[in-house]
Amino acid sequence: MSLDEDKLKKFGFIERGPKDAINIDPLQTGGILTEDARKALLEWGDGYSICDFCGGVLDLIKKPPVYEFVHEALPEFIGTDEVRVTHGARESKFAVMHSMGKAGDTVVLDGLAHYSSYVAAQRADLEIEKVQSSGHPEYNLDPEGYAQAIEKATSQSGKPPALALLTYPDGNYGNLADAKRVADVCHEYDVPLLLNCAYSVGRMPVDAKKLGADFIAASGHKSMASSGPIGLLGVQEEYADTVFRKSSTNKNKEIELLGCTSRGAGLMTMIASFPQVVERTKHWDEEVTNARWFSEKVEELGLIQVGQRPHNHDLMFFETPPFYEISKTAKKGRYFLYKELKKRNIHGIKGGLTKYFKLSTYQVGRDNLSYVIDSFEEIIDKYTKE
Amino acid sequence: MSLDEDKLKKFGFIERGPKDAINIDPLQTGGILTEDARKALLEWGDGYSICDFCGGVLDLIKKPPVYEFVHEALPEFIGTDEVRVTHGARESKFAVMHSMGKAGDTVVLDGLAHYSSYVAAQRADLEIEKVQSSGHPEYNLDPEGYAQAIEKATSQSGKPPALALLTYPDGNYGNLADAKRVADVCHEYDVPLLLNCAYSVGRMPVDAKKLGADFIAASGHKSMASSGPIGLLGVQEEYADTVFRKSSTNKNKEIELLGCTSRGAGLMTMIASFPQVVERTKHWDEEVTNARWFSEKVEELGLIQVGQRPHNHDLMFFETPPFYEISKTAKKGRYFLYKELKKRNIHGIKGGLTKYFKLSTYQVGRDNLSYVIDSFEEIIDKYTKE
Repeated sequence: MSLDEDKLKKFGFIERGPKDAINIDPLQTGGILTEDARKALLEWGDGYSICDFCGGVLDLIKKPPVYEFVHEALPEFIGTDEVRVTHGARESKFAVMHSMGKAGDTVVLDGLAHYSSYVAAQRADLEIEKVQSSGHPEYNLDPEGYAQAIEKATSQSGKPPALALLTYPDGNYGNLADAKRVADVCHEYDVPLLLNCAYSVGRMPVDAKKLGADFIAASGHKSMASSGPIGLLGVQEEYADTVFRKSSTNKNKEIELLGCTSRGAGLMTMIASFPQVVERTKHWDEEVTNARWFSEKVEELGLIQVGQRPHNHDLMFFETPPFYEISKTAKKGRYFLYKELKKRNIHGIKGGLTKYFKLSTYQVGRDNLSYVIDSFEEIIDKYTKE
Repeated sequence: MSLDEDKLKKFGFIERGPKDAINIDPLQTGGILTEDARKALLEWGDGYSICDFCGGVLDLIKKPPVYEFVHEALPEFIGTDEVRVTHGARESKFAVMHSMGKAGDTVVLDGLAHYSSYVAAQRADLEIEKVQSSGHPEYNLDPEGYAQAIEKATSQSGKPPALALLTYPDGNYGNLADAKRVADVCHEYDVPLLLNCAYSVGRMPVDAKKLGADFIAASGHKSMASSGPIGLLGVQEEYADTVFRKSSTNKNKEIELLGCTSRGAGLMTMIASFPQVVERTKHWDEEVTNARWFSEKVEELGLIQVGQRPHNHDLMFFETPPFYEISKTAKKGRYFLYKELKKRNIHGIKGGLTKYFKLSTYQVGRDNLSYVIDSFEEIIDKYTKE
């Protein structure tokens, strides 16, 4: 309690930085708020703002239309019988793992899974069995790998895995595996499948029923133009009573959600952006066209796109030998690229990376993508002609 | 995906309602954003906004000063060796229970514990042993009750409880138990103590070291003028390695936090409000004076404050026989009070309650509290003189 004024001066309102940059950060392109969401943020920003309207179960609130959103619109949007709002995709994954598995059970993860899938499994005390990808350069996942992993886990532990997970797409290469086939393989062994859709739901059409997925984890801050932390957990009927089991002492509270999750600004920004989010998923083909076009153009500059080709997602991973060569002699070393891009108001490639990096073309548009391509060319020219 | 336009029209930006009401809702008085926090909300509202500055561990970010906030200011503020930001007090409680207990272990809860403490224990598969309060009218907790509960749990299960919890204050009566004495009792049995400070940290001075608490759960949206979901988890050194254990596969990620928690608007509003939050805790005595004064005045109208007397917290529970009598014959029945208060721009007493209700005087100020008292009187007069 002896926090003196000097220390406190560091806190308070802090500016974020330039606001008009062209953003190609994969973490951010799908999370930028719509105008409606920005308005909702201020309107509902106070702690517990939405609880005014709550009779004890947040997702049953009729006005604002939380009930319709959570129990009608979202299930239709992602194709699961039930949906709940969570704090994010990782929290959704943990909720499923913790409900479906017992300590010592196995979860099968794809070899491209996000670190948070590992950490969620570890928090739930599950063993992990990996399905390896084909490795460089395409990093493809063979759905039959799930059969092998399930058989291996079963023979090692004496019981089948509690769950399988597929990252759809993965967050490194933006690869979209054949989820339908993976689901079929898992179901042959009666193993339910969780799709981690942090980079898909809200960007592209995802229908869990069509894909055969039993669970969906989605991210509001990553792909649904929402102010985080917020995500979705979709569950098919068969497992809804397990994951959304209720408390014996507090009959209307769902244990796995600790009774209540996102309440206030996050949820209201998700609702605010939702009409535009639904709309943008209908134009996914244009986004894929832009991604492929961008990839082709920068490959002409000597960059090499790894992962699936032709690519099916806005998130792409590039090996970048021209930039690496420059970094060996540039004054600012491996930070030269970050500084050159910053000067040109391009945001989203991590400082210090020159050998490879990932980026996203989502919602950036042809004009801005052209500008990014031209900037890459300019930078290469500048240093190689010095 | 067949969400038609009619359905989507219901979503988008939604207004919250009148903004200038006098708010006496216990859930909300401590969570109203400061001006700085409102600015921060817009500045950092986009999903993952803060991740621009992250090298892999969010709470190590130097600029903005997340590191200093989480690792220096907050530990000093609440008196624990370590602090992490979580999604809220309930998530903090679950993290502690899940780390400290094994399935089948016991947690001791005070009889006034919030429902989320029960649900957190159930999610962690813990048995619950309750310390009963003295009941009506003061609902006091005898610290010695913890000794009895610990002994009972130990004799029943053959091992001591993994944890004890005290709600400080409880969310129904606003009672502040003798936490220091409870800690001493628990420590005599080597049982660590978690204080649920959702209604105290950010409102009043709390020093875990002075109180002897091993863990603190706090709430940003409830008591730290932050946009939720956000909370704090404070842990003393002895248990820090247990609760903040790291992943074997992802060495810098803390398992119990799934690697990362609040990122973006929530955290930045907490940082924005922090200087004012620290300052307001220094004026807690004035808040207690106001609460006692308010209680005295409404008791003159026939209301009866239950819970500790004289009261030590802004959250108070009143039995309200005058309103109950009116509700028996009033045209709008038990909703008359809600409507009368709404007309007078007073917000925060749940619709339909007339026999009893809780309210909070926190940061409402004498003038507005006078207006609330006068309104209560006016309403009673209006109906009893009809």
